[in-house]
This record gives sequence, structure tokens and C-alpha cells, in this order.
Amino acid sequence: MANIPAPVKDIQFIADEVLDLAAHYQKLGVHQDIDVETFMTIVDEASKFLHEHAGPLNRNADEQGCRHEGQSVQTPDGFVELYKAYCESGWAALDGDEAYGGQGLSYWLQLILGELNTYYCPGWSNYPGLTHGARELIEHFATDELKAKFLPGLTSGEWAGTMCLTEPHCGTDLGLVNTAAKPNDDGTYNVTGTKIFITSGEHDLTDNIVHLVLARLPDAPKGTKGISLFLIPKMLLNEQNEPAERNTLGAASIEHKMGLNGSATCVMNFDEAKGYLIGNANEGLKIMFTMMNGARLNTGIQGLSATQASYENALVYAKERLQMRSATGPKLPEKPADPIIVHPDVRRMLLTQKAFAEGNRALAYFAGQQIEIIKHSQDQNEVARADRLLAFLTPIIKAFLTEVAMEATNYGVQIFGGHGYIREHGQEQWHRDAKIFTLYEGTTGIQALDLTGRKMLMMQKGQIGEMADIIQNFINETPTPHNDALQSYLDMWQETTSFITQQAMKNPDEVGAASVDYLMMSGYVILAYFWAQLHNSAENNKGQLGADFYNGKKKTAAFYFAKILPRCHALKATIMTGADPLMDMAESEF
Amino acid sequence: MANIPAPVKDIQFIADEVLDLAAHYQKLGVHQDIDVETFMTIVDEASKFLHEHAGPLNRNADEQGCRHEGQSVQTPDGFVELYKAYCESGWAALDGDEAYGGQGLSYWLQLILGELNTYYCPGWSNYPGLTHGARELIEHFATDELKAKFLPGLTSGEWAGTMCLTEPHCGTDLGLVNTAAKPNDDGTYNVTGTKIFITSGEHDLTDNIVHLVLARLPDAPKGTKGISLFLIPKMLLNEQNEPAERNTLGAASIEHKMGLNGSATCVMNFDEAKGYLIGNANEGLKIMFTMMNGARLNTGIQGLSATQASYENALVYAKERLQMRSATGPKLPEKPADPIIVHPDVRRMLLTQKAFAEGNRALAYFAGQQIEIIKHSQDQNEVARADRLLAFLTPIIKAFLTEVAMEATNYGVQIFGGHGYIREHGQEQWHRDAKIFTLYEGTTGIQALDLTGRKMLMMQKGQIGEMADIIQNFINETPTPHNDALQSYLDMWQETTSFITQQAMKNPDEVGAASVDYLMMSGYVILAYFWAQLHNSAENNKGQLGADFYNGKKKTAAFYFAKILPRCHALKATIMTGADPLMDMAESEF
Repeated sequence: MANIPAPVKDIQFIADEVLDLAAHYQKLGVHQDIDVETFMTIVDEASKFLHEHAGPLNRNADEQGCRHEGQSVQTPDGFVELYKAYCESGWAALDGDEAYGGQGLSYWLQLILGELNTYYCPGWSNYPGLTHGARELIEHFATDELKAKFLPGLTSGEWAGTMCLTEPHCGTDLGLVNTAAKPNDDGTYNVTGTKIFITSGEHDLTDNIVHLVLARLPDAPKGTKGISLFLIPKMLLNEQNEPAERNTLGAASIEHKMGLNGSATCVMNFDEAKGYLIGNANEGLKIMFTMMNGARLNTGIQGLSATQASYENALVYAKERLQMRSATGPKLPEKPADPIIVHPDVRRMLLTQKAFAEGNRALAYFAGQQIEIIKHSQDQNEVARADRLLAFLTPIIKAFLTEVAMEATNYGVQIFGGHGYIREHGQEQWHRDAKIFTLYEGTTGIQALDLTGRKMLMMQKGQIGEMADIIQNFINETPTPHNDALQSYLDMWQETTSFITQQAMKNPDEVGAASVDYLMMSGYVILAYFWAQLHNSAENNKGQLGADFYNGKKKTAAFYFAKILPRCHALKATIMTGADPLMDMAESEF
Repeated sequence: MANIPAPVKDIQFIADEVLDLAAHYQKLGVHQDIDVETFMTIVDEASKFLHEHAGPLNRNADEQGCRHEGQSVQTPDGFVELYKAYCESGWAALDGDEAYGGQGLSYWLQLILGELNTYYCPGWSNYPGLTHGARELIEHFATDELKAKFLPGLTSGEWAGTMCLTEPHCGTDLGLVNTAAKPNDDGTYNVTGTKIFITSGEHDLTDNIVHLVLARLPDAPKGTKGISLFLIPKMLLNEQNEPAERNTLGAASIEHKMGLNGSATCVMNFDEAKGYLIGNANEGLKIMFTMMNGARLNTGIQGLSATQASYENALVYAKERLQMRSATGPKLPEKPADPIIVHPDVRRMLLTQKAFAEGNRALAYFAGQQIEIIKHSQDQNEVARADRLLAFLTPIIKAFLTEVAMEATNYGVQIFGGHGYIREHGQEQWHRDAKIFTLYEGTTGIQALDLTGRKMLMMQKGQIGEMADIIQNFINETPTPHNDALQSYLDMWQETTSFITQQAMKNPDEVGAASVDYLMMSGYVILAYFWAQLHNSAENNKGQLGADFYNGKKKTAAFYFAKILPRCHALKATIMTGADPLMDMAESEF
């Protein structure tokens, strides 16, 4: 299996030439000590570190997986050493709060670090990823006392974190959570219940694991408004804040999965485990969902990384594998056959992967910029706008980037032919690993309901209007050969939006019926906008990345408009047929 | 993992009510001793046998896989007993030549048996499947002497068969085969070379394995016209035609794959292995390709079986799993939540699976009827027509049924949410197993080139014309509510066909550029025709399968026309942009 260096030039192109990170930070008045060169040096170092330490573990992590014995979980060979080196090199603390030992670098760099973690070894990526998420939540919502106890360990990476939401009978429907928390006299709580699908719930990488657990207080209202959030450490701390006593919780088992085998997915039992309330009672879900935008953006980026890695492997193969002659005559007459990259259908698959990976990177980083605006901007209007944009884009990024990753990684197998089905080439692993991205952190269906139900209908003008305005302004101000097409698909998107909002007034099922098709259409149109941007940036390039690089971007933009964007015609046509074809069927008629 | 009985009622509906098997056999003047009731009794018995003996092995077959030691391969637990029972019950001999111990039943029943084998246990299905293919080839092309030696064992199933085509450097491009055959003085040949991806190349189910091997004679012309076909048994026979002496060939290793782990995929070394020429020298590829229609139809049906099985599992889950409330108010107010089948998007996924499985069954059986017409009809015009239709439909069936199986089995995972990713539920296995169907027996890209290149362009009027005429006649003669839509998509298909054939004259790459999109469009339009037929048969039903059953068919037809068929709009739009967006990119610009 190949361990191909990540496309750092592509990261640079988007961050510097398309989204102008220097101007972005200058406007926000933060991170100005980090110029483009320094930013890219950090990215480059991260990529080199992971290429050396994480990439070589990827195949074995899948093959060996995690092993559960008693209450302990052993990660695949090399993960312990990788994690140690990762923390010692300071990668765990990259954007951590300096007050607790963090380096205070930008969120954007952290996003890219997550992208690279998944690119080199997806099974590994969730250990730092979940720890980062838990740390952020505690930074935002915990008391100073809890912060002082837990943030130093989580920031350095010495301790790890998890999110414990799902129970056997409830995944999507968290209102049904019945893990129970009993208050103790000392202000702590005893928590009892079973949580499933807990990523990194137990492992051998750290001395302590900090669980963020949704549970219900004795007097809590039913449903989603009666759920509170608890911090429950695996090891209780002594007065020096050192792990001292084992808490009454543990991994009952680990799941055997389709992929992502290096990532331990645990069934966690909490048996009167001692914990601390975070935030107000009964507001646990609200807090958890505040963190959701970031978590979902990261999951979308995992899809992007899988797409990119599958593409890089496939591209090498397509240039090397000799099979059949070009339809227009031999290209390498001295060889027994031409490389398969001469065949139009192989190119169609490669370009689909490329268009998704590179366009989606721009979309994901743009969303990352919105998070930084929300964090740092002093301008309240700008913050409110970024907040709306992010709320609108998040479900699209989570679902669209991961759904197209399934298509792209499937092509990654297909380009290899029968060899793609063999494990050692690693292509089938990308497809298996990628599948979880469409499921965890809210399935595609849930994202689509979030978009069409909660977001589009509740805050319509302020939401699609915002993104549509950005696209319209681009069309008006920036001439590209793709503007006419972009305009017509923008119009189609807006018509379709109006259609759904009107239908929804007559029948609430119309929203769900249109939801996934509408989300995908939104993704394709937004991606078209970014490809028009990429074209424009390549046309007016800084020259630093080479002529082939920029020409490749312009031609990929042309490919996207010709071969991918027209999918919207089908999506519009199916949406227009409404909910009846789905809802007419009686259960007994299936 | 569920072991749900196969939908025998659906098989009956297509075979009896849609495709009228009684009339079909009456017209052909064969198999008239088998009326519909007997036909369905055989199907029912096959399903019961496999439900009892094969279904329970499916999960473990994936988990345990095959094991290679020395030169021997052990199949998963239970396969030896299953195979013995399968042969003893006469299933192996179902459509075999009575002269060699076969039962002489119809090819159609054999197709359905293959469908059921894959439905209950895909990893098992290739052992009888490959044996059947090898037996058929020998029936058609071998000398009487070879038939007498090898057909009795292959017909009873006492011996197994394989097809050995692929070599490390050539899969698609069989002109590059360099396995060498040297003639011996006694009329036999010594064959030397390495073959890869050999399904059932070695296993513990039978005393002998008969390999059909492509190799090159010393004086053979280069390329595809210099390839001959050899029968090479694992065990050489003594004068009583009993396996007596080990031939010099063996499995060097087995592949570790994405799925289909119960099926042994072997690297086979032939080291001066003794073999017999089948057919004329240098005509091996022609013979092999004569068998290809059947093999590709069977692979398409494997896709259909995966789709069906994933649907059956998902349907049970969707009716049982309680999560969230219906958008139109609680459906089971006494329960904590509604079953997820109330949600429109879950229905969209279920109905997509259902529409593909049931419509594709009609298409596959229709192709099976053409094979029977070619076999049995006395009317040479009818045979020629069936031959053309089959040649046209085969690549569509192979590629379309397997590509939509990837979509359908992906939905099968998605409907289960996170639980779909866990191995024990079996849903992710269907997706992994199904992937090989888009690869072996010629990838989707190869099927698409066969359709658009060889078949559509070389024999245009006689091919698409034939299928288009069938659809047009149906529209003219059979009123259904879907006829207007069917007509407009038929027109779209014909326009697109003309467009591609015109483009192809200017630039040969236009064919490859359009090929997969065009194949998929062809599949969607042909499937629309079959769904209109299914609607019509359900409307004018025989009443034997219940009102819910027939209503379900009519509503699934409506779903197909509303939510699936419009995909053609996108396919047409992308095809119309031609080859340039694919071919413009220089290799260095990727």
C-alpha cells in the first residue's frame, strides 16, 4: 500500500491564493505573527511528521484492528509510539489555550492537521480528534475549577477525551437517553448507564480518558429538554490532579466494523461512576450541539481526506498500469500497451475524485474561516453573518463531502480493476473507512433534515439568501467562462428552494421527501461556485505553484461544470415529484 | 445477522405473470412437462434447501474466510457439508445434460438457482457457479472423448470447474496472455504460467478441479488471435476416468479481499501441467467469449441478489427500529418513538432498493428467455433476433445491475444508521461482497465499451433498434399511466444514441467518454419499460399473490418513474458535453 505525501501544494493554493489567509487574519486582527510562509511551514512539518509516523501504520491498523481484553483495549501496533511522538512534537497542543499549555495557533491549522491525520491514517485520526473536541467543549463550558483539573492533560494530549451520546435504543433520537445521574452531597454525581459506539472509549494511548456523557437527572423533564452533560474521568484525580483511583466505568466490548478498525469503538458501562456537571442542568444537549458545527466540519473533512488519498493512489496506478491501447492510436508504441490514464472512462473517474477533493477543500476551509470569524471578530454583524453561514453550510459539508467520498473511493477501487478488491493495495480500505463518515456525527438523512427542516425553513431568507448572495456577487464581479452556467444553476437552486418551502406548508412530509436530494443539489451548486473561484485564482495565479498546477485547476473546473454539475437536473426533477411517491405505500405493501 | 427467506412470490410474479413462462415454453416446444406449479415447487425447494443449509453459513464465511496451507485451500466451516448436500439433492445437476447424469431442467431454473445461491450466501455461490460455467463450455466445445471423461463428474458436482484467464500483467487486455502451451507427442499439451484471481482455483469441496486455461502455443500469432483454450485437471485420470495422479499445478496463495471471503481467489501456478486443447488452436478467446453472455448475466444477477438481500434485512429493521416521530404526528403514540419506516428518506432508500431488485429481476429473466430461445427455437429469425437482443442487453445487465447493487447495498447500511457499520448485522457485508460484481467478468468500464463501441456502433440499427422497438410496441399496445413518461425517455435515449454515434465519427475517444453514462441511461430506460410492464401485470393480476403484493408493485412503479428515472436528465446533459473535458488534461496536469 502506498504512503503518498499529502498534496501540500493544494492546501497552499486554497489557503493562500483562493481564500487569502493573510488578509483574513489581518482583518480579524489575530494570528498575524503567522505569515503564509510560516503557516505553510507548519503544514509541511505536520505532513512530514505524519508521513513518517502515521502513514506506515495505516494498512496494519486496518488488518490488526483493536483488541479488547478484560476492561482494556489495545490499539494497533505503533499507535502508542505515534501518539507519544505526536504529543511530544506539540501537535496535540497546536491550537490549545496557552493558559493551559497550548500553543495558541489558529483553528484553521488545526483543521488542516485533522485533514492530514485522516489522510495518512484514518483509524488513528479519531484519537487526537476526539480529544481535541472534548478539550474545546471544556474550554467553553466548564467551570474554572474543572478547567484547571482537566485542561492541562487534554491540551498536551497526555489525557484523551470522548463524547458519550448514543445508547442502544437511541442514536439520532437523543430525547430517549436514559443514562441516569444521581447528585451526591459533595456536588458530584453518580452516573449509571450504557453508552454504545463510543469512539476512543478505551485505549492504551493515555493515562486518563475524559468522558463527556449525556445523562438524565432524577427530576429531569422527558425528552431532549431533560438531558444534562457530565464530565466523567476514567481515573479520578488526587489533590495534585494526578490520576489516582479507577472510576467505576469501563469498556464492556468493542465493535467489529466494516472499517476504521484502528479506531476503538466501545460499549461503555457506567456503574455509579463519579462525574461533574458541565453547564446548567438539563442543558446538556444544547451544549453538545454548540460543539457540533466543528465536529461535523471535521467529519466532512475526513471524507475529503479519504477522497484525496484514494485519488493519489489511483493516479499513480493509472499512470503505471499498462492495459489496452488508446482509442486514438498507441501512445507508448514501444510498450505492450498504454497506461490506463489514456482511457476516457479512467479519466472520468480520476477527475471526479480530483474535482471533489480539491473543490471541497475550498468549501471546508471557507467554513473554517467562518468559525474563526465567530471566535475572533469584533464586528457583531460579521459574527452574526458568519454564524448563519456556518449553520447553513455545516449539514451540507458533513453530508455532501462524505457522500461524495463514498462515490470517489468507490472509483478508487474501480480504477484498480480487480486489484482494487485486494486488501494490500489499500484502495478498498478507503471505501470501507469512508463509510462511517456518512453515519457518525449524524447520518446524511439527519443532516438533510437539519438543512431543509430546521435551517432552511426556519431562517430561510437569512440562510440560503446569504450563500446565494455570495455566489451572485461573485458572478456579478468576477468574470469567468463558467459564470453563465453558475447563474443558471444558482437560479435552479433558488427555484427548488422556493418549491420545497411552499410544499412544506401543505404537508410536513414534503420536507423529508426532498431533503437528501436538496442537500446534494446545494452541495453541487456551492461546489460549482468554489470551482469558479478556483478557476479565477488559477487564472490570476501567483505563479508559485507551476504552470501545470494552475492549468490542471482550470481544466478540472471545466470538467466539474461539464460532467458533475448537471446532476442537479436529475435532483430537481425528482424533488418536483414531491412526497407522494414515497408516502403512498402502505407498510404492508413493501 | 438475519437469514430471511428469499422472495419466492416475487420470482413467481415475474416468471409467471410478467414473462409468462408457460407460453414461453409452449412456443419453444421444450420443458412442457414443467408447468408453473412444478416450476415454482422447484424454486421453493431450492430456496428452502439454501435457507436451511447456506444462509446460516454466510456470516461466518465472511469472518473466517478461506485458509491456504501448502498447496491446499480450506473453505469456511460448513461449506464441505453444504456442497455434499447440494450435490446429493441434485441441485448441481439441475440443467445438466441427461446423457451425462444431468436432470435436463431449464436454464431459467438454473438462473434462479444461481440467484438464490448468492442471495443466501454469496461467498458460496461461485463454487457451483464456476462449475456450471465450465461444464457448459465443455458441453459445447469439447470432443466427445473429453466430454466422456469430464462431464459426468462436473454434472453431478463431484468435480468442480474454474476459468483461468487473468495474469498479473493482464486482466482486461487478454491479448497480453503469455502462459505457454507446448504440444506433446500424445496429443496433450504441457502448460506453464501463472494465473491470478482464479475463483475456486483450489478448495476442499471436490476430489478434482477442472481448469479451463487460456494459453499460447509456440507458433501462435501475437495478441488476441494467438490464444488457445486448454482443459487442465488438477488430478489426471486413470483409464477408469478416476482421479489418479496429481498434475503439476497448484495454488501458490489466496487473495485477502474486501469481501466475498468465502470464495477462494487463487494465484495458480501451472508448471508443465498436462492439458487438453479445447476447440481449434488460436480460437480460445472466441470460445471463452461465447460463454461470456451467460457468465455476465449470472454476475448481473449476483448484483440483484445482493440488492434483494440488503433490502429484506433493511425492511425488517425499518419496521422494528423506533426512532423519532413522523413529521405528520405520532404513528405509534403508545411507543417512545415511531418505526423509522415512517420517515420519507428511509422510504426513499428502501424503495430504491426494492425498485432495483424487482425491476432488474424482470430484465434478467427476460435475458434468460433469450438464451433459451437461442438454445431451443427452430425459427432461425427468432434465434437471430434473440442473439442480437442478448448481445445488446448483456453488458447492460452485467454493469447496470451491479452498479445499482453498490448504491442499494450502501443504502442498506445507511438505513441501519451506525448499526449498519457493525459486522454482526450483515448489512456492510452485502456492500463489500457486492463490490466484486462490478469488477470481475469485465469491469463496468469494459461493459460500457462493449455496449457503446462494439455493439452499438457496429450493429446499431439491429441492436438498440430491437430493444427500442419492443418498448415502442409496448407503449403503443398497452395503456399504463407511465406511457407518456416512458415515451419521452425512450426518445431521449434514442437522441442520445444518435448523438454519440455521430460524435464517434469525429473522435474515437467520444465513445469511451460517453460509455458509462450511456450504459447507465440505457439501464434506466430499459428498467422503466419493465416497471411499466410490472405495473400492467399487477393491474391485470391473477390474484394469486394478494392485493398488498400487487398494490406494492404499482406503487413501486410510480416511485421508479418519479424518483429514479429522472437521473437520465443528468446523464444526457453530461454526455452532451463530449470528450474534451476528459481528454484536455495533460498527464502532468493531474
